[in-house]
Amino acid sequence: MTANIDAAKAALSHMEIDDAGPQLKTKSRDFFWYSPVLKARLDHVLGDFVVAPRNEAEVIEVLRTCHAHDVPVTTRGAGTGNYGQAMPLAGGCVMHMKNMAAVKDVAPGRVVVEPGCLLKDVDAACIEHSGQELRMFSSTWATATIGGFVAGGSGGIGSITWGSLRDPGNIIRLRVVTMEAEPRVLEFRGEELARVSHAYGTNGIITEVEMPLAPAYDWVEMFVAFDDFMSAATFAVDVANLDGVLSKIASVYEAPIAHDYFQRVRPHVDEGTNLVGLMVAPHSMDGFLTFLGRTQGAELIYRSDDHDWQKHPGPVFEYGWNHTTLRALKVDPSITYLQVRFGFPEHLEKVAKIREMFSPEVLHHLEVIRENGKAMFAGLSLVKFTTEARLDEIVRLHEEAGCMIFNPHRYTLEEGGRQTVDDRQLAFKREADPKGLLNPGKMIAWDDPEFGFETMYAYPKLKAAE
Amino acid sequence: MTANIDAAKAALSHMEIDDAGPQLKTKSRDFFWYSPVLKARLDHVLGDFVVAPRNEAEVIEVLRTCHAHDVPVTTRGAGTGNYGQAMPLAGGCVMHMKNMAAVKDVAPGRVVVEPGCLLKDVDAACIEHSGQELRMFSSTWATATIGGFVAGGSGGIGSITWGSLRDPGNIIRLRVVTMEAEPRVLEFRGEELARVSHAYGTNGIITEVEMPLAPAYDWVEMFVAFDDFMSAATFAVDVANLDGVLSKIASVYEAPIAHDYFQRVRPHVDEGTNLVGLMVAPHSMDGFLTFLGRTQGAELIYRSDDHDWQKHPGPVFEYGWNHTTLRALKVDPSITYLQVRFGFPEHLEKVAKIREMFSPEVLHHLEVIRENGKAMFAGLSLVKFTTEARLDEIVRLHEEAGCMIFNPHRYTLEEGGRQTVDDRQLAFKREADPKGLLNPGKMIAWDDPEFGFETMYAYPKLKAAE
Repeated sequence: MTANIDAAKAALSHMEIDDAGPQLKTKSRDFFWYSPVLKARLDHVLGDFVVAPRNEAEVIEVLRTCHAHDVPVTTRGAGTGNYGQAMPLAGGCVMHMKNMAAVKDVAPGRVVVEPGCLLKDVDAACIEHSGQELRMFSSTWATATIGGFVAGGSGGIGSITWGSLRDPGNIIRLRVVTMEAEPRVLEFRGEELARVSHAYGTNGIITEVEMPLAPAYDWVEMFVAFDDFMSAATFAVDVANLDGVLSKIASVYEAPIAHDYFQRVRPHVDEGTNLVGLMVAPHSMDGFLTFLGRTQGAELIYRSDDHDWQKHPGPVFEYGWNHTTLRALKVDPSITYLQVRFGFPEHLEKVAKIREMFSPEVLHHLEVIRENGKAMFAGLSLVKFTTEARLDEIVRLHEEAGCMIFNPHRYTLEEGGRQTVDDRQLAFKREADPKGLLNPGKMIAWDDPEFGFETMYAYPKLKAAE
Repeated sequence: MTANIDAAKAALSHMEIDDAGPQLKTKSRDFFWYSPVLKARLDHVLGDFVVAPRNEAEVIEVLRTCHAHDVPVTTRGAGTGNYGQAMPLAGGCVMHMKNMAAVKDVAPGRVVVEPGCLLKDVDAACIEHSGQELRMFSSTWATATIGGFVAGGSGGIGSITWGSLRDPGNIIRLRVVTMEAEPRVLEFRGEELARVSHAYGTNGIITEVEMPLAPAYDWVEMFVAFDDFMSAATFAVDVANLDGVLSKIASVYEAPIAHDYFQRVRPHVDEGTNLVGLMVAPHSMDGFLTFLGRTQGAELIYRSDDHDWQKHPGPVFEYGWNHTTLRALKVDPSITYLQVRFGFPEHLEKVAKIREMFSPEVLHHLEVIRENGKAMFAGLSLVKFTTEARLDEIVRLHEEAGCMIFNPHRYTLEEGGRQTVDDRQLAFKREADPKGLLNPGKMIAWDDPEFGFETMYAYPKLKAAE
């Protein structure tokens, strides 16, 4: 099976195509370089051409054409992912969804939208229509697409209330095109959503998304400072447990993260400041301040609706989730990160234990999320990178301490997830992508069913560096 | 200090007054008769006159006048409480708030309303204004007032998501008039709300309420049947723990409650049916049905948006909370109830244990509520009443089994609560009602600071039966 790139390109030449220059390179990459491990392996990856269909009919045409010519297709939105999700490991066609960005319908509690719509544009349309917004979004809200979030994300700002994208109810419906001689259009709801959500586009291409909405409020954004780290962590999860106080994010930054990496916050903190970033609904502020007043050692140093900071810090959520890592990387390029789950009910104990083991080589950055109804922590720890061996050791020691790791230094679904094969995704790939042309190299179960996860998976067809 | 009833009545004669006949009797009572214990003690209670002020100025005039003439004032809304909260134990003036029912302002996430407004009218105004509704309400939504709910309620439909009224954020602001020679008007927010909320009007009269709102949806109402009781209870709390599924109520009815007491449900169940009543947001139905499909032994027998029941069962929430007791009482007058807290994390174990100890003398009726971020159960158990001694024994055995009881067979704040003095309420009563004229007999700490809670409190000035 050899890809006939030229034939596919010729057949699609009436569409918007990039096949050279900086555009091709840019659109073949995502934010994989947060990881020194991925940077060493994927930096040279390049597609053969980028095509940007304008509607579902053109998506079908791209898939039919590439299927006919055995050309791999890797689909991408804005490329803000961090695991090479949207990078064409075997070259071929990069399908860019930017031209499919229409908000098609808004109703109470739901929006129907095309996958290439930016998260911020989904929200703008829903706010204008009826004062609604997405339940959750990534910290790349301003630049990322809803399709990329569903296909490659797991949760984010809003997960403190609504849990994760994979939880029933957080995606309503996906419309998906298969990669076959004659592509089919399928609609997935309920239990079937797990086949294609968070599958990196390996087994079908999303052409329409229906998402639940929550009311949009003029969230009050805050920073609360603590001298004591565990007090900060406890406070953040306690805020999530205030049933009458509606919050959207609670992030915890171990000292000296705020001082060293948050440029506009730095004048207001010192090296020992542990910081909590928050978004609280305006009508919940009295309740929040009531609880804050009961909290020893908490100092409210910033609130977006009433402050005297000369330089506006920007949205508080752009300090959280993977924007924390980005801010640290800009100051210290040797920083990378881990994704850790500090599960209920030992979340606080585990955070304390990991801190004893690793700080300051690993600094805690925690996000409060809800899982199975309980507030707990997703850690996006900042790691001072030395060697891959040490990084692997840190991962292993976390796991031995009972903390689940979602390894962001791997480019496969399985290694970045729970290190197990997702049978539903695999079964659907067999049905929907029989030639294995969709985003190749990302699903180990497809390429190497016997893989044992002892070492990092290396996709054998990964285009060699030229 | 002798009340000069005639002088007060004369001074207030320009207002709407009832001082005789069935109106006076009706407005001197609430739903205390759910309890055989309270029925035996309070059935004869009668105020001397009822006055219905039309605005805050008239409230002030009523209080000033009654203060001058040493007349007790017991304030009431619709009188749907169950503990004699609104009954004038020492006679005197019953202040009825029905003429103060204006919705004054609706904004995103909040409503400002007068206390006499019915809960259903608050919701109607908020839905019409901007598709919003109260976060929580009692099962007496159609007849109860917002002021009565705040002054005498604790939570209800919506507490599965938002917790209890006492949780920070679930009341935003109360405007309160004091009982002094010259009444003062005070505004309470945050920490100060605890002084007057759930105080039965013993230390100030609420003239304006500001409450948080949630989005209003066309909730899908459902009944799900189980053969196995513990499966039903587990399912209900699991639904509450579905972070992506927005629910408003999850009630559990042990068999044969549904069969014996729910007339319009009876044709669709049998004696062994354990029932779960639910309200789920329409855009969460796919997620809910996904989870339902994973649940062994669950049968969806009714959904409000798609059913073939010949007789409409009415709102599912009117089977829950204290409407369950009401339905049982109508069929079997010997039924009464208890209020039990089955706290996280042993909520399911405790429910199972209590069932082994008491069923069928005590049948479980559970409501899922959230407390400190965790889903758990409030029990409003149905009790086959025999004697007061046995009822007291059942209470004691619950407490010995680790279940907190909020005793609904007592008319004082303390005995119906946590059996401890609320120092904030007491301190504010000293300041706001120095003569002790507001709703006398309801705050033990005021009347008898040395009371030890070994036996039921008996208010010495309780007007003797005539």
